[in-house]
Amino acid sequence: MKPLNQLTATEIVAATSAGRVTCEAVARACLEHIERREPQVLAWQYLDPEQVLARARALDRGSRGGPLFGVPFGIKDIIDTCDMPTEYGSPIYQGCRPMNDAACVALGRRAGGILMGKTVTTEFANRHPGKTRHPKDPRRTPGGSSSGSAAAVGDSMVPLAIGTQTTASTIRPAAFNGCVGLRPTFGALSCSGVRQAAGSLDTLGLIARSVEDVALYHDVLLGIDPRPIPAAPGRLRIGVARTHFWTSVEPTYQARIEEAARALARAGAQVSDVTLPPAFERIEDAHRWISSFEFVRNFTHEIEHHWDRISSDLRDYRLADGIGCPVERYTAALAAAAECRAMLDDIMRDFDVLITPSADGEAPIGLASTGNASFCAIWTSTHVPALTLPLFTGPNGLPLGLQVIAARGRDRDLFAAGRAITSMVPH
Amino acid sequence: MKPLNQLTATEIVAATSAGRVTCEAVARACLEHIERREPQVLAWQYLDPEQVLARARALDRGSRGGPLFGVPFGIKDIIDTCDMPTEYGSPIYQGCRPMNDAACVALGRRAGGILMGKTVTTEFANRHPGKTRHPKDPRRTPGGSSSGSAAAVGDSMVPLAIGTQTTASTIRPAAFNGCVGLRPTFGALSCSGVRQAAGSLDTLGLIARSVEDVALYHDVLLGIDPRPIPAAPGRLRIGVARTHFWTSVEPTYQARIEEAARALARAGAQVSDVTLPPAFERIEDAHRWISSFEFVRNFTHEIEHHWDRISSDLRDYRLADGIGCPVERYTAALAAAAECRAMLDDIMRDFDVLITPSADGEAPIGLASTGNASFCAIWTSTHVPALTLPLFTGPNGLPLGLQVIAARGRDRDLFAAGRAITSMVPH
Repeated sequence: MKPLNQLTATEIVAATSAGRVTCEAVARACLEHIERREPQVLAWQYLDPEQVLARARALDRGSRGGPLFGVPFGIKDIIDTCDMPTEYGSPIYQGCRPMNDAACVALGRRAGGILMGKTVTTEFANRHPGKTRHPKDPRRTPGGSSSGSAAAVGDSMVPLAIGTQTTASTIRPAAFNGCVGLRPTFGALSCSGVRQAAGSLDTLGLIARSVEDVALYHDVLLGIDPRPIPAAPGRLRIGVARTHFWTSVEPTYQARIEEAARALARAGAQVSDVTLPPAFERIEDAHRWISSFEFVRNFTHEIEHHWDRISSDLRDYRLADGIGCPVERYTAALAAAAECRAMLDDIMRDFDVLITPSADGEAPIGLASTGNASFCAIWTSTHVPALTLPLFTGPNGLPLGLQVIAARGRDRDLFAAGRAITSMVPH
Repeated sequence: MKPLNQLTATEIVAATSAGRVTCEAVARACLEHIERREPQVLAWQYLDPEQVLARARALDRGSRGGPLFGVPFGIKDIIDTCDMPTEYGSPIYQGCRPMNDAACVALGRRAGGILMGKTVTTEFANRHPGKTRHPKDPRRTPGGSSSGSAAAVGDSMVPLAIGTQTTASTIRPAAFNGCVGLRPTFGALSCSGVRQAAGSLDTLGLIARSVEDVALYHDVLLGIDPRPIPAAPGRLRIGVARTHFWTSVEPTYQARIEEAARALARAGAQVSDVTLPPAFERIEDAHRWISSFEFVRNFTHEIEHHWDRISSDLRDYRLADGIGCPVERYTAALAAAAECRAMLDDIMRDFDVLITPSADGEAPIGLASTGNASFCAIWTSTHVPALTLPLFTGPNGLPLGLQVIAARGRDRDLFAAGRAITSMVPH
């Protein structure tokens, strides 16, 4: 049997529910792994082993069980918790103690999960990095803004973690860390208790090590009894969306995606190229103005009272953009995104899913930036669900993801396609 | 000159900016009126006169001015404030002190406004009433859930207040209290720092005593320099939307609306009847399941940890609905709302605005309920902006509103139409 910290959530629940393993044993295995690895990875903003073990023992004593019975999970520190500090990646909020759990935290706990701790976020889930390093190479960024969540799951510290995504903040770090990452359909899972960055774009992000786990966690966070992933269509209609960013994709990564497309066709999928209309070339710009305009309004309090404790990364880019953005440009950007959303709805009538890069390559060297976010801006702005699958390895031995896109509201079909694609692409 | 507490925000800013009146004098006038009236109205959850006066004096000493320079405003106690308790209308949160201001609070303060205090909300902005009474008749409800905000503005305690709306929580109390109330286009103004009830429906609500003030406050909350209300079209195209709830409208209220329609036609508007498609008859039901399903998820923490301190009003209705709602019913309800949204977009191509009742009549006698919410469910669920104008008086001498609806995103045109309609309907 694999070490307990390497089990998926689905495997843990099977073991704890059958009484084969205690919740405490699972928690201890994860805590011991964290103790060994945390000095290098620095994934955790807050972690109190005694608190975790007390919760695990209480679960073992109780009779409630639940769909996440005994599953440790991490929560990005942009999300409120009632019994752990929530600091939003900013010195302004050192020691901040909200009075309640965000919806996603409370739902995970109600399902029998064990909140392991708070994972490192970039400052306010924006661009200024936290302390986390890539678990496989400490010179490299783990990606962001859900840096700690992805590093913790990728390094087998926990099987599940929640992040958020306003641009690429879940898909990118999940891909960099060899995780399965889900950015659900916009609006599908509650962000109540999550510090808002840009309300027109923000979603939760789910990070796990299998598609089954992402589907399980999705249902827990929707507050329903988990359902099995449906069967994928016999002949999956897959569009290869290279997008206008294709030329900036690392050549070996391009090659892996092309090989995957051929493998999928060989395995029986109907694979064809998709060229997005020219309007999609302007969507990254639209995304920039939507997110900046809204971010600046949402952080009015911090701008007014704590300007000196905001990083220059944030002040000189996002805030400068948002402060300088005329409302007409913002309104035009919203209209441009809505136009692309309608066009993508049309395009998706011909496809079950699109496949596309999750990033431009492996996690880059350097800790001052969390990497290129362009490969998510189209999908984030159009509110479609996106799943990254850890199917490839890059030239430096680091993970590369395949991003899979479905139509809005088709998250469950996306899980089906994700599972099918994982089985069809050799990896 | 009117007493300072009776001035509109626009009038106050003109006076303070010209140096004719100090911010302190305005604040004192409002505080003195509150002192006289609060024992009967009970609009305030938190109010500290010294804190208010200190802020007013600081504004008088400063040189910043601003579009709300010296304007006192109230904030519904479902919205976070950094220097006043925020209790969400629930004993669970007694003394709760958030670390920051919600976006709408910080934007109002940055504009030079004076946060007067926290106004009474129903429990979690849902159905269980707070202590507030109707200013004109203490046996009657002020409406809810933004009870204190509407009573405070209606009673001239403050010229502006913020509420929220998930069903009828701004339009209904604003109408009951003779205020102008705005439910902006869904998503148009940031709800960051506002406790979420149902994310698919929640918006801020703006309450004032003139259309000009609502427009001014709207721009402040959008974080832009306020702009003048545009001119209304020369021949305003007005649809009279009686809706399938018409037979439950008080007969004298029906008569006032019919008279208003005739007056508008006489004044040069193009007035015609609008019959909404049958799908709209199911939208209140859809609204019920959307709001209940989402509400229950958002309050998982309270349900798990504080069940005994939740009112039976909330437990037996909203929570029971949400707990019992299968996800299929929720998904179908979302689809039904989206279908009506698209149909209403089409209908609105032929009209600048629709007019419709704001409620079923005057504020009813009794404090156990905040009144009938049916007259807002259609518009809330379809995400269109709604404005209530205090144009009529009912048989008991209490205010009745005319609700004016525009297409999504047309909030500014709604202000134009609201101002024009106010001038065209004798009142």
